[in-house]
Amino acid sequence: MRGAVSTRYLIAGLIVLLVIGLIFVLRNARGPSLPTGLPADAMAVANERGLTPDDVYAALATYVPGGKQDDYVMFASGGHSGQVIAIGLPSMRILKVIPVFVPDSWSGYGFGVENTALHEVYGRGPYPPADTHHPALSETNGEYDGEFLFIGDKLNGRVAVIDLRDWETKQIVRNPVFNNNHGAAFVTPNTEYVVEVSQYSVPLGHKYAPLERYKEEYRGLLTFWKFDRKKGRIVVEESFALELPPYWQDLADCGKGASDGWVFVNSFNTELATGGVEKGNPPFEAGVSQNDMDYLHIVNWKKAEELVRAGKFTRINNFRVIPIKEAVAGGVLYLTPEPKSPHGVDVSPGGQYIVVGGKLDPHVTVYSIDRIKKAIESKDFEKTDAYGIPVLRFDAVKEAQVELGLGPLHTQFDNQGYAYTSLFLDTAVVRWTLGPNDKYKAPEEPWKVVGKVQTHYNIGHLAVAEGDTVKPDGKYLVALNKWSVDRFLSTGPLLPQNLQLIDISKPGDSLRLLADMPLGMGEPHYAQIIRADRLKSWEVYPEVGWDPHRQAKSPDATDKGRIEVRGDTVHIYTTVVRSHFTPEQVKVKRGQKVVWHLTNTERTRDATHGFAIPAYGIGASLEPGETVTVRFTADKEGVYPFYCTEFCSALHLEMMGYLLVEP
Amino acid sequence: MRGAVSTRYLIAGLIVLLVIGLIFVLRNARGPSLPTGLPADAMAVANERGLTPDDVYAALATYVPGGKQDDYVMFASGGHSGQVIAIGLPSMRILKVIPVFVPDSWSGYGFGVENTALHEVYGRGPYPPADTHHPALSETNGEYDGEFLFIGDKLNGRVAVIDLRDWETKQIVRNPVFNNNHGAAFVTPNTEYVVEVSQYSVPLGHKYAPLERYKEEYRGLLTFWKFDRKKGRIVVEESFALELPPYWQDLADCGKGASDGWVFVNSFNTELATGGVEKGNPPFEAGVSQNDMDYLHIVNWKKAEELVRAGKFTRINNFRVIPIKEAVAGGVLYLTPEPKSPHGVDVSPGGQYIVVGGKLDPHVTVYSIDRIKKAIESKDFEKTDAYGIPVLRFDAVKEAQVELGLGPLHTQFDNQGYAYTSLFLDTAVVRWTLGPNDKYKAPEEPWKVVGKVQTHYNIGHLAVAEGDTVKPDGKYLVALNKWSVDRFLSTGPLLPQNLQLIDISKPGDSLRLLADMPLGMGEPHYAQIIRADRLKSWEVYPEVGWDPHRQAKSPDATDKGRIEVRGDTVHIYTTVVRSHFTPEQVKVKRGQKVVWHLTNTERTRDATHGFAIPAYGIGASLEPGETVTVRFTADKEGVYPFYCTEFCSALHLEMMGYLLVEP
Repeated sequence: MRGAVSTRYLIAGLIVLLVIGLIFVLRNARGPSLPTGLPADAMAVANERGLTPDDVYAALATYVPGGKQDDYVMFASGGHSGQVIAIGLPSMRILKVIPVFVPDSWSGYGFGVENTALHEVYGRGPYPPADTHHPALSETNGEYDGEFLFIGDKLNGRVAVIDLRDWETKQIVRNPVFNNNHGAAFVTPNTEYVVEVSQYSVPLGHKYAPLERYKEEYRGLLTFWKFDRKKGRIVVEESFALELPPYWQDLADCGKGASDGWVFVNSFNTELATGGVEKGNPPFEAGVSQNDMDYLHIVNWKKAEELVRAGKFTRINNFRVIPIKEAVAGGVLYLTPEPKSPHGVDVSPGGQYIVVGGKLDPHVTVYSIDRIKKAIESKDFEKTDAYGIPVLRFDAVKEAQVELGLGPLHTQFDNQGYAYTSLFLDTAVVRWTLGPNDKYKAPEEPWKVVGKVQTHYNIGHLAVAEGDTVKPDGKYLVALNKWSVDRFLSTGPLLPQNLQLIDISKPGDSLRLLADMPLGMGEPHYAQIIRADRLKSWEVYPEVGWDPHRQAKSPDATDKGRIEVRGDTVHIYTTVVRSHFTPEQVKVKRGQKVVWHLTNTERTRDATHGFAIPAYGIGASLEPGETVTVRFTADKEGVYPFYCTEFCSALHLEMMGYLLVEP
Repeated sequence: MRGAVSTRYLIAGLIVLLVIGLIFVLRNARGPSLPTGLPADAMAVANERGLTPDDVYAALATYVPGGKQDDYVMFASGGHSGQVIAIGLPSMRILKVIPVFVPDSWSGYGFGVENTALHEVYGRGPYPPADTHHPALSETNGEYDGEFLFIGDKLNGRVAVIDLRDWETKQIVRNPVFNNNHGAAFVTPNTEYVVEVSQYSVPLGHKYAPLERYKEEYRGLLTFWKFDRKKGRIVVEESFALELPPYWQDLADCGKGASDGWVFVNSFNTELATGGVEKGNPPFEAGVSQNDMDYLHIVNWKKAEELVRAGKFTRINNFRVIPIKEAVAGGVLYLTPEPKSPHGVDVSPGGQYIVVGGKLDPHVTVYSIDRIKKAIESKDFEKTDAYGIPVLRFDAVKEAQVELGLGPLHTQFDNQGYAYTSLFLDTAVVRWTLGPNDKYKAPEEPWKVVGKVQTHYNIGHLAVAEGDTVKPDGKYLVALNKWSVDRFLSTGPLLPQNLQLIDISKPGDSLRLLADMPLGMGEPHYAQIIRADRLKSWEVYPEVGWDPHRQAKSPDATDKGRIEVRGDTVHIYTTVVRSHFTPEQVKVKRGQKVVWHLTNTERTRDATHGFAIPAYGIGASLEPGETVTVRFTADKEGVYPFYCTEFCSALHLEMMGYLLVEP
């Protein structure tokens, strides 16, 4: 009996233990266990902070640990901040704000330094406000090459060139013929040209004409800025433009692959409305939205080049402009209908499809370059417009129309055969399948919506990693939402925008929101996302005495501080190094002209020094190796401390000097 | 046998199951299982991205899901960007950049809008660069009340007032006596005064004097700006200053609790060095670092008020200045030695301890207000300085010296009895225990280092949540590191700073780094962190027609667009609402003066509209309810589209009008 009893106890005991084991097995089956060594407090903090399982996923998919680096850089326009904002993905951290059209006290841009793009164009100011819209990375064979970034200023009709070796703006060109733009900047696949398209029609050449002469004297303009990669500059003399009808041209995209050599520009206000709600006219918002169809402009830029070479242009303010008549005669310019007050026009990776967002129509309309070429070849025109431009028959060039939802604006593409369109009114991103004739094929049937994700709120543009190239990366999409309302802590009546990171890596209906990012310093209008390893930024300037504006050694560089008086001008050569300026005592007489050259002689990465003379409105940032020049007339007697404005060492506060302007 | 065998098999089987169960028990013991419903791919993505267990913790401790909000707002100075940067904690996302001393095209600050602080001080510009250093939140009874934010501009000797109802800068005051500062802004516990301390000594009153007369004619200055909370303005006429010796005054802190009524200001360059490395003098960095002890200034501001009431001041540029002699006679000003080229001076939550970071000394020196008061009462002076100021005997006022490491700069406090000091040269934050006579008591013995965390790299200031109040929250600390070197993707030679979030919630040696944040738009010098629920920001302006500069209804508000010509001036009253301006056609004759009032009649949160006339350098941001005024002379004939620069609706692009300047 004792044996049987003890066996029974043993079995009973084992069963109890088994049940305990099974409970753990079952508990464990609910989810995978954490990896070995995971701190017990990780889940505790998630629970304490009320994170949902999806939040946990998103947190782990976006967190970039200290010392590790992001995979992508998104260059976002700063909208009416006038600047460019560089953001790391997936962490959505702002890496840097690059000043472009508007002064920036941090980097000394626009505060007296002579060797900058802003000073070159405007001198010491005043500077106008700006409104950057579309950044464009330079391309080689249709891929981002990481060398340059271009961006348009809608407000003033300007385009800027940023060198990505040092992330500084090198050039600003102002359109000699037009005073605003929207479709800027876009580049051709080898960055032969930077494209700028006008928005609100005006008389060409900065002239006056009454609104009553709108149809006759107002025009649009498509400008091809020639880019010289070696110089890192747009060459104005080698650039040209194309006169367009006074429809309000809107966005543009350059053809690539199958459509290389073409540019597509959409438009609205083919009604030629001129507003006047105060006089009982329909306001612009109604007046420009009456037609069911507006016009997509189809432009052959290689033929346009030929026309220019053949002298088929006029000069307006000494800038070469191809008249509409010559463009039509030369086979450069065609139109085709597009519904309705369209907004974005975007070319697929293989270049076969041109996708137009209807804005006031729930469809995107897809054109194919094969159909367009064929219609042109066979002169399949439905009419000519009021300016004599042939209008390709809509049904001849239309490949598909896909119903997506309310307010389709912009489209991006990935490497899985999907397109992504922003829906402004639905505040969503939809994923849909392209047709079979482009580069990538989705598993689903073509021209179908296969996924959707809600955004918050009022999405404008959207950007896919390497999305404007012939080889998109996919993986991430960023929604650039115009309103944030209650998504973030209140910052008063002026709220940030909300950029949302979306995971698009998996096929089908799998779009997954990863992060919300407030952006309260501008209205990022559009963005491009480049793989970080494509960027070859300099760590310090190539040699001591570098002039970053010319990207060459400065003749004013010095390794020895000195003061020279020549005539009525005091020339100061200052060396800047941790932790002193040489010279430290600078005496000038009231009324003398001062030319001050400063050279940061550091070779250590991040050893930037600042320099400022407040009384004369001067502020500079001197990166390692940099030489800058400032110039002023010492017309105010007094004692002016100058000091290093960038915390550089433990003796940073001691890095100062006195400018004495003697009576 | 069969029974025995089957029992044996049963036991063997149970043992096998038991072992399986135990394996699960043991696996489970390594970490808690994930909560029910956790996606299996959460851990997969963590592994794929190479996150360590600490990274997982940090990610979960800092991620703020879409639609949820941060717990704290950190108002960081923007350094030589001249602005203020508001950052959410724990997500470390930038919520907004508040323009202060430098124009901002996004918010239209400095681009022609009349009703702004910048215009009030400078008109249409040009604007000097700026260098914001120390933000100070307004306080009530020593706690942040969330109403106002003050900030100093080191470069120009200015102080600004920001109203936290709408997060806009309302006032900029320029010091009438001095042209630079450093210790600004700091507030007294009920925001009676905003304190501004000079840095580099100059002759008072913006005068000239040669460096040879440094000792006699150069001075420092401590300014008490009187703040009128109802007006939301500094009242210059009710403000005053205190003449100081030409030591380079540095940082300051206002007493609170036990030390209410006092201000503490440290200094370096008690050597009275004037530089001149180019002449063989020691450079400033050496010349100002020769003495082993510099001076802490101890100022009784309540007695200073009495002196001013008693007329014991002179006027410099019509500003009231108490001479050193009067201050000494009135018991307002004392000195005491402090080692060596000190940097930060910080008052503990209870107000008992004044902590000075030695910078070139490995210790912090702690003074107690009880000892200071006693030494003053008993005239326990070791000498008077060269300017006749009594020097309190060091050993009489010193409470403790705590050896922390190399380069101690600034100290913050929590609610556990700990102090935190930044070590610039060690690039670390150390946690140490305060003595027993303040408000909170740490579990460890007093005046001991109990924890340390490495930062990356070169930490300057640090900020604890509600850390400058009489009741710190603790919980989070942010290290404001000056260099980032390789911590983030390269952004060219000019790199971002690195702000690091550190968890300080647990006692002892438990400081835990949570996140790195690049900040590439300025050099956040110092920051204060406020609990988000203390802020009572407006969602929209209180009524339509609001003038945010005066915080009152504007007499120029309108709900009906119209144009009135009076004499040689055209007055335009424009309503702004989704999605049109009224009027849309504005005709003026060349040479006419234009006064343009715009009112955003929206009551919807986030329904901001922009307005810009590029040719006249005008850009405005109109928040819901706001009225702004711009003014220019129409001296350029032509056709100028004006448009809404803030993407406001699907018909945003259609929200435009034409300004026609007729010949």
